[in-house]
Amino acid sequence: MKHSYDYLFRFTTDILVKMGFTPEDSAQCAKVFLAAEVRGFATHGVIRLGDYYKLWEAGRINTKPNVRIVHQTPSTAVVDGDSTIGMIPAKFSMELAIKKAREVGTGWVATRNSCNFGISGYYAMMALEYDMIGITMTNASPLVAPTFSAEAMLGTNPIAIAIPAKNQPPFVADFATTPINRGKFTIAAKKSENIGFGFAQDKNGAPSDDPAILEQGGSMLPLGGDRAHGSHKGYSLGAIVDIFSAVFSGANFGPFVPPMVSYLPVLDKKVGDGLGHFFGAMRIDAFQEADHFKSMMDVWIETFRNAKPAEGQERVLIPGDPERESEARIMAEGIQLIPQVEVDLKQIADRFGLSFG
Amino acid sequence: MKHSYDYLFRFTTDILVKMGFTPEDSAQCAKVFLAAEVRGFATHGVIRLGDYYKLWEAGRINTKPNVRIVHQTPSTAVVDGDSTIGMIPAKFSMELAIKKAREVGTGWVATRNSCNFGISGYYAMMALEYDMIGITMTNASPLVAPTFSAEAMLGTNPIAIAIPAKNQPPFVADFATTPINRGKFTIAAKKSENIGFGFAQDKNGAPSDDPAILEQGGSMLPLGGDRAHGSHKGYSLGAIVDIFSAVFSGANFGPFVPPMVSYLPVLDKKVGDGLGHFFGAMRIDAFQEADHFKSMMDVWIETFRNAKPAEGQERVLIPGDPERESEARIMAEGIQLIPQVEVDLKQIADRFGLSFG
Repeated sequence: MKHSYDYLFRFTTDILVKMGFTPEDSAQCAKVFLAAEVRGFATHGVIRLGDYYKLWEAGRINTKPNVRIVHQTPSTAVVDGDSTIGMIPAKFSMELAIKKAREVGTGWVATRNSCNFGISGYYAMMALEYDMIGITMTNASPLVAPTFSAEAMLGTNPIAIAIPAKNQPPFVADFATTPINRGKFTIAAKKSENIGFGFAQDKNGAPSDDPAILEQGGSMLPLGGDRAHGSHKGYSLGAIVDIFSAVFSGANFGPFVPPMVSYLPVLDKKVGDGLGHFFGAMRIDAFQEADHFKSMMDVWIETFRNAKPAEGQERVLIPGDPERESEARIMAEGIQLIPQVEVDLKQIADRFGLSFG
Repeated sequence: MKHSYDYLFRFTTDILVKMGFTPEDSAQCAKVFLAAEVRGFATHGVIRLGDYYKLWEAGRINTKPNVRIVHQTPSTAVVDGDSTIGMIPAKFSMELAIKKAREVGTGWVATRNSCNFGISGYYAMMALEYDMIGITMTNASPLVAPTFSAEAMLGTNPIAIAIPAKNQPPFVADFATTPINRGKFTIAAKKSENIGFGFAQDKNGAPSDDPAILEQGGSMLPLGGDRAHGSHKGYSLGAIVDIFSAVFSGANFGPFVPPMVSYLPVLDKKVGDGLGHFFGAMRIDAFQEADHFKSMMDVWIETFRNAKPAEGQERVLIPGDPERESEARIMAEGIQLIPQVEVDLKQIADRFGLSFG
């Protein structure tokens, strides 16, 4: 069954209000959930309401947070998310980065005591309307093994960067530092397909194509796959995201990140508060006159879009193209949820005396 | 034949002085060449003196540059390298980023009108002694095809990030945004070996394991290798490095970067000046009290170093470990050059009435 954006937006908002969030916070979170749905990241969309519901039920989410700055300089800050849902401190932190960029050219905010914030790209793109470049990183549940290791130590730790252009749509890269994201495992498992090689290993570090391997002590591989093909670079990227998000902010890092997935244990040992994010905003005119920069971005984008396709390929894409095309299509056609998500949402709705579907 | 660090340092300095650089600039450049030799990046070491010699002979390198700030805000600047050898504006720019970080928490400098600056890690590591994180990026000769493309549009565009610890050595990631760097092709060709698959494609975009393919219109693949394994993420990273280094600064980007390799044509079309770099410095205590941050980095490093090795592997490495071990070994044993480099250096020495060997 397909749903309209507006229907799912209102439903998600209503659920969050029922949990105890303010209407404003609830609407903000719903916007991020829905951005994931329409931009082709259904793995980060309303499917996750169930995860947050479980965290909320377990008392791990503060619905009346006091999100606040705990340290700052003219170009930096650390924000404490007060154990709430990630979207709330994430929006606060990105707005703070943008404010600092307005004042001194760039702004950088590390955020602790948060949890999953949805899609990284949402926050990076907040900078675009101010003629700024936006940057977002976050750490996540430990599922990825460093090169040469059999142990899951890092999250899929995404990086998002949004760069404005003039007549062209913006350049928006938003990607996990692993070859595929965790959701692809779930989908392959639901379809009883294997995932192919180069993505995961078993608990001893031997290659595996089993989508259920993560639930059996296995781990995901970093971008690059193996050492010969540069997995130490994917490992480095994941590590940098972890350090910027959590050591800068005072959150839990690496294997100590509180897991969002039920098959990973919640550790007793803590090295910080909650999980961590990192946000950056860079005013374009801190470097080049904004109109000139955006015109040159048009040239950059047109140059790459016109690169010669490889044999058998139709065209060369710019980061952000697939998500923009997905958004146009899904806003027109509606949002298709998989049957299990329909069931899950109906259960949550029932719990709160709401209807769904 | 092996050479001592001091011998090659003096030789390199002398050659650069003979080209017309000041003794101070020459020594600075020599330091970066030698850092590459000892840190295990011989592909960026004195082997490249021949490339610079050719650029100098062609009048493409200004030995008496007026490196200068052309635009700035409290946390940012654009530097013009005045067509000199990359090491000179790179050091100037990183020092400027550090100065700005001291004043407002972070400093970000985009540099244009430069050329190859050696190893990125050298400049990122300059921040460490100030209790700062250092970041370096640069664009480079167009050799890498975007995902789905048969055309080389990007350089191997490296990223380096150096993060200080307390009792542990620093975390230093320094990597091309491709599975392997360009030097590996040269070495495989010299040994008449193939390079394996996942690294390059022919001029139509078909997989190739021929190390000479780049000279036949082929191209390197981005980190990830193919689309299924995340090459669009490697492409995004290379693109971000290109935009930060060149669109922020006003340098040439993408396929317009003036090539350092003789088999690529020098294009008539320019979209900026020279090639571009990007430098960042972030004061640790702009986020966390420095001693606390460095202690937590010790915990991070120890945690990852103690991760369970995969079967058949001895240990898990921290970014920077291999380079540090290489440095200790090579400083003790001396620098082994390959015979062709010995011949090249002797020729350059002869040209300037110097001796070598």
